[in-house]
Amino acid sequence: MFANDLIKEALDAGLVAIPSDPHALTKMINDASPDSKAFPTTMAAYELGKRLYFDPRLSKSGIISCNTCHNLGLGGTDGVPASTGHKWTPNPHHVNAPTVYNSVFNAVQFWDGRAEHLMAQAAGPITAAPEMAATPELVVNRLKSIPAYVAEFKKAFNSEINFDLVTTAIGIFERTLVTPSRFDKFLEGDKNALNEAEKKGLKMFIDKGCASCHNGVNLGGTLQPFEVAGKYEFANVGDFKGDANGMVKAPTLRNVELTAPYYHNGAIWSLSDAVKAMGSIQLGIEINDAEAASIVTFLNSLTGTMPKVEYPMFPASTDKTSKPELDY
Amino acid sequence: MFANDLIKEALDAGLVAIPSDPHALTKMINDASPDSKAFPTTMAAYELGKRLYFDPRLSKSGIISCNTCHNLGLGGTDGVPASTGHKWTPNPHHVNAPTVYNSVFNAVQFWDGRAEHLMAQAAGPITAAPEMAATPELVVNRLKSIPAYVAEFKKAFNSEINFDLVTTAIGIFERTLVTPSRFDKFLEGDKNALNEAEKKGLKMFIDKGCASCHNGVNLGGTLQPFEVAGKYEFANVGDFKGDANGMVKAPTLRNVELTAPYYHNGAIWSLSDAVKAMGSIQLGIEINDAEAASIVTFLNSLTGTMPKVEYPMFPASTDKTSKPELDY
Repeated sequence: MFANDLIKEALDAGLVAIPSDPHALTKMINDASPDSKAFPTTMAAYELGKRLYFDPRLSKSGIISCNTCHNLGLGGTDGVPASTGHKWTPNPHHVNAPTVYNSVFNAVQFWDGRAEHLMAQAAGPITAAPEMAATPELVVNRLKSIPAYVAEFKKAFNSEINFDLVTTAIGIFERTLVTPSRFDKFLEGDKNALNEAEKKGLKMFIDKGCASCHNGVNLGGTLQPFEVAGKYEFANVGDFKGDANGMVKAPTLRNVELTAPYYHNGAIWSLSDAVKAMGSIQLGIEINDAEAASIVTFLNSLTGTMPKVEYPMFPASTDKTSKPELDY
Repeated sequence: MFANDLIKEALDAGLVAIPSDPHALTKMINDASPDSKAFPTTMAAYELGKRLYFDPRLSKSGIISCNTCHNLGLGGTDGVPASTGHKWTPNPHHVNAPTVYNSVFNAVQFWDGRAEHLMAQAAGPITAAPEMAATPELVVNRLKSIPAYVAEFKKAFNSEINFDLVTTAIGIFERTLVTPSRFDKFLEGDKNALNEAEKKGLKMFIDKGCASCHNGVNLGGTLQPFEVAGKYEFANVGDFKGDANGMVKAPTLRNVELTAPYYHNGAIWSLSDAVKAMGSIQLGIEINDAEAASIVTFLNSLTGTMPKVEYPMFPASTDKTSKPELDY
């Protein structure tokens, strides 16, 4: 296969590399972050956001953090069909936690796209009763009771603590969770970054039409019509129907190797099965076993290099910190 | 106060420094680890043990890891009275998770001392139904289904995966979680490592008799009689009574500032209150507010430097990996 032709074909299909040039990458991240002008990615905001991302005291119980369902070690997901939160409650619509990695590049957040950016997304699970079950007041009051957090917000934002800044800081940390892969090197012109089987899989991915929804830098992340050509037959669990128009966010395919189970309700465990189901549901074609295997070979090349994250230490609670509420 | 006299007094009271010399520290850790001859702390075993410590797939549900209840960011504990596990079940005896930091230096593990070393301890929560709810078979089979783990065990132990090696690897990682503090520098002769208020607090700590149980390198970690002088009046929650002889492990006081709530049943949130209760229950004396505040000032100097831990990435599950069981 002629690599140059394939690169051109991939670019024409709307596939976009995570840039290897750090300046270009920074620009891409900032362009994808509506709040990046008001809230640039400073070291102080990153460190604060990282602490908040991992600190379980942002939940009512004190034992669930953002990382519980978007585990950075598990491809940014939790590996279970339905995210499970406060009081061991599965998500009431039985939806699966999308990966946090590269989420900055999604055009919209949540499966139904109801949040436009990471800051708005972060507010959801923190305050959802079956997830972290907190309120903005609970979170703000807990953090205000901890002098080191007060100082960190002052340093990062020159402000007192408020809930918008809590979610902003988390969003700033999440902006940095991008994972360049061999696929990106290939798109940038390194013809040997993918092996022959992966190139063949990429060609199959484009030829079958996968890139009609899974395009852009995230190979997904935009709202798309669902069940275009057939019924999703794995819908026996959950009542998710997409947004008001039935549109569903096509998930990013980056690191998809790590983020089983698949689909909005986490009903399919095998990536090959997921590829075949997409063929019949979205494209109206049969993708056979060999073709699915080839596409999966390509998809596995999207597993990227995760940024190194030092596990944060949280400042101690004080006598004023509200107690965890487990609601047994 | 004459610092040299106080250092001598502290040493005479049985207090021991975490050595600043790395060779001496390694020797101390190995002497405290009965399995260190058979299983030395190699880099490969450390990395494997760290992964296993954070990997929630060691639990039946796939969403609870060692770090859930022994959170390295929260002083090695979970910050709630009773550890809460599978199906949101509080520990049936309502006992509080002890810190993992410096646990290698405990003479015995668990509140009733029923495990002699970290390897034996680690097996407990993984297989306890109200905690991680797994079985040795479940853990071993899950890990064996993941080729990268098979390779890591081979590299670390030149062996196939078995459950003893799982807990051994976790114990090896935990061995490294020691937290030297300013107190250690003081004991080693740096007279200015503690300020005057902290020195006064240390003197108070010794004079009141606290060091009669809270001694050694961990200022605790040995089985001691409980309710020597009075009843523990905060026992309305839980039925923990110590070992067969009513003996209870005196918890380490290192990082105690970070590990509220206190006592075996996590019933006391204020460190000052905890100190006063110890006076009446164990020593048969009244410790007044000013004295307790002074002792707490010293105790806060035991907050150590946590080792830097890079958050691990877990190898992907495969089609052969057993599915998480949430048991909703």
